Amino acid sequence: MIVPLRYDADARVVHLLDQTELPVREVWLPLGTVDAMAEAIRSLRVRGAPAIGHAAAYGVLLALRGASDPKAAARDAIAALRTTRPTAVNLFWALDRMAEAVESGPDDADALHAHLKAEADRMFAEDQAAGIALGTHGLSLLQDGATVMTICHTGGVATSGYGTAIAPLLIAAERGLDLKAFACETRPLLQGARITAWELEKAGVDVTLITDSMAAFVMKQGRVDAVFVGADRIAANGDTANKIGTYGLAVLARAHGIPFYVSAPVSTVDPMTPTGDAIEIEERSAREITHGFGRQTAPETVNVYNPAFDVTPAALISAIVTERGIVRPPFEAGLRAVAG
Amino acid sequence: MIVPLRYDADARVVHLLDQTELPVREVWLPLGTVDAMAEAIRSLRVRGAPAIGHAAAYGVLLALRGASDPKAAARDAIAALRTTRPTAVNLFWALDRMAEAVESGPDDADALHAHLKAEADRMFAEDQAAGIALGTHGLSLLQDGATVMTICHTGGVATSGYGTAIAPLLIAAERGLDLKAFACETRPLLQGARITAWELEKAGVDVTLITDSMAAFVMKQGRVDAVFVGADRIAANGDTANKIGTYGLAVLARAHGIPFYVSAPVSTVDPMTPTGDAIEIEERSAREITHGFGRQTAPETVNVYNPAFDVTPAALISAIVTERGIVRPPFEAGLRAVAG
Repeated sequence: MIVPLRYDADARVVHLLDQTELPVREVWLPLGTVDAMAEAIRSLRVRGAPAIGHAAAYGVLLALRGASDPKAAARDAIAALRTTRPTAVNLFWALDRMAEAVESGPDDADALHAHLKAEADRMFAEDQAAGIALGTHGLSLLQDGATVMTICHTGGVATSGYGTAIAPLLIAAERGLDLKAFACETRPLLQGARITAWELEKAGVDVTLITDSMAAFVMKQGRVDAVFVGADRIAANGDTANKIGTYGLAVLARAHGIPFYVSAPVSTVDPMTPTGDAIEIEERSAREITHGFGRQTAPETVNVYNPAFDVTPAALISAIVTERGIVRPPFEAGLRAVAG
Repeated sequence: MIVPLRYDADARVVHLLDQTELPVREVWLPLGTVDAMAEAIRSLRVRGAPAIGHAAAYGVLLALRGASDPKAAARDAIAALRTTRPTAVNLFWALDRMAEAVESGPDDADALHAHLKAEADRMFAEDQAAGIALGTHGLSLLQDGATVMTICHTGGVATSGYGTAIAPLLIAAERGLDLKAFACETRPLLQGARITAWELEKAGVDVTLITDSMAAFVMKQGRVDAVFVGADRIAANGDTANKIGTYGLAVLARAHGIPFYVSAPVSTVDPMTPTGDAIEIEERSAREITHGFGRQTAPETVNVYNPAFDVTPAALISAIVTERGIVRPPFEAGLRAVAG
């Protein structure tokens, strides 16, 4: 299990894994101040919505040492950390919980530290429990020795150690089972190559990196038993928006008779979105494709289409795995039951 | 039409497009000596089997100026150019034709130059005629306004100006038709981004670059009328080996009801290979995937699978377009007829 950070309560230091250095170097930054944590969040050294929330929560604790007014210092820290990533919902949610803990907590600095640490630990443990549940449910769909194909990064360093789509692989590794993985590199930003491959290798999972264009050929060779993907949003009918490339994997899996599973916490299900047609697809900068390796690899003026996500219709999804259980098609009632 | 080279007979200079500078710069190298041409072939400034043959053929002409024994100089040039790319069949084929022309030619330097130039021009024109025929046959499968998806580079600078799979687009542009293209970038080496996108844009074709992982989503949106791909080898039954990613496009095209065409000269058909199962797939270096363009983007020690080609079964191919006509399934008899 690869956590995004560890808090040393004695030294009052957060050790944060600098994700911008992956996969070349595994650098753990010792962060002793709120400013240092704010900089780390702002410059994407920690990424993944749950991990940002955890980083901010532990960041509040760094304000307390030597503070003449510990509660005021904690409030200032919360205000400062709120400005780091303006659209990160998990950040605000985590800081709201810390703010409540500040107001309900004791005034003494050490006692307040223990009180706030307990709240940060609780959020981390809740997220970890959800990851373990997701992974355990997903693992029940696989046999020992199975090979899973995945796309993008859905792993531990973006959460509290288990992630979503690769949680079954991480749980299997902990239990000594022999699951294997194909990681699609995930153009344009290569999250599969840069982070998933690194994290699975680190966890002791036998992982093989391929380009996205190789997925079909690997499936045809009979080397894939299941596809597991994450989700950015799941509509009420089960249509699923996820990283671009996911829909293609779903079509290919169906053509090769391979089960295709979506793995996501119930918070990803959006009952207000009836079907995938209502999901707007973000288009991103052409330069992610034309200058993807820090070097120009396409004509400067060429037209580029760069959708960040695609939508996989429910009909291509074998099951949706959540921390509250496995939902089978037709998905509408089952999703209502777990997400209600 | 983007040719790989132009010969200036008055100045006795070959102007060669330096493909290693694409897509950032369009550099035309003036090559006045056999040594300069040999260096250009050796260092991949000209690539694509037919284009290498043309470059070598015109390279022989560069030996004649000021030579005291023009035939001896031409023979030396042929010997020197043979050593540039040891496995390039077209290179030897073109130099064999030039060697025959030397022996059957006049002794006078200017007369020999005219004789050899006629042979080099003839090879170039033959290849160009094949490209025009391929493109014209392919174009008959498309309606004005159609959008074609393609992968890898199969265009003019690798041949004599028209190429194979994109020949219909280049012919259409010359005729003032309004065909559009999606170019898949083609990981790991990005031939689609680096060369196809550049060449189509240059030819005035409305081309949009996408990552390979976006092909399925673009098809689902109803934006693709046909897929055209090249071929490295076509088995007797029509199974086709081509750049990795081709098979996936074929599966996706079938799932979306889009015709899938292979476009290749009859020399690509191998009657000695009964089916695709007999085609050995070359595996290439992990670093093409882990160090795309000089920068590490995956863990140093990760397992990598890097097949250079895949095999598309004949059952997924709507038609095989050759310079001698369009072959429809079942392919066996038709391929024998055009390639026999």
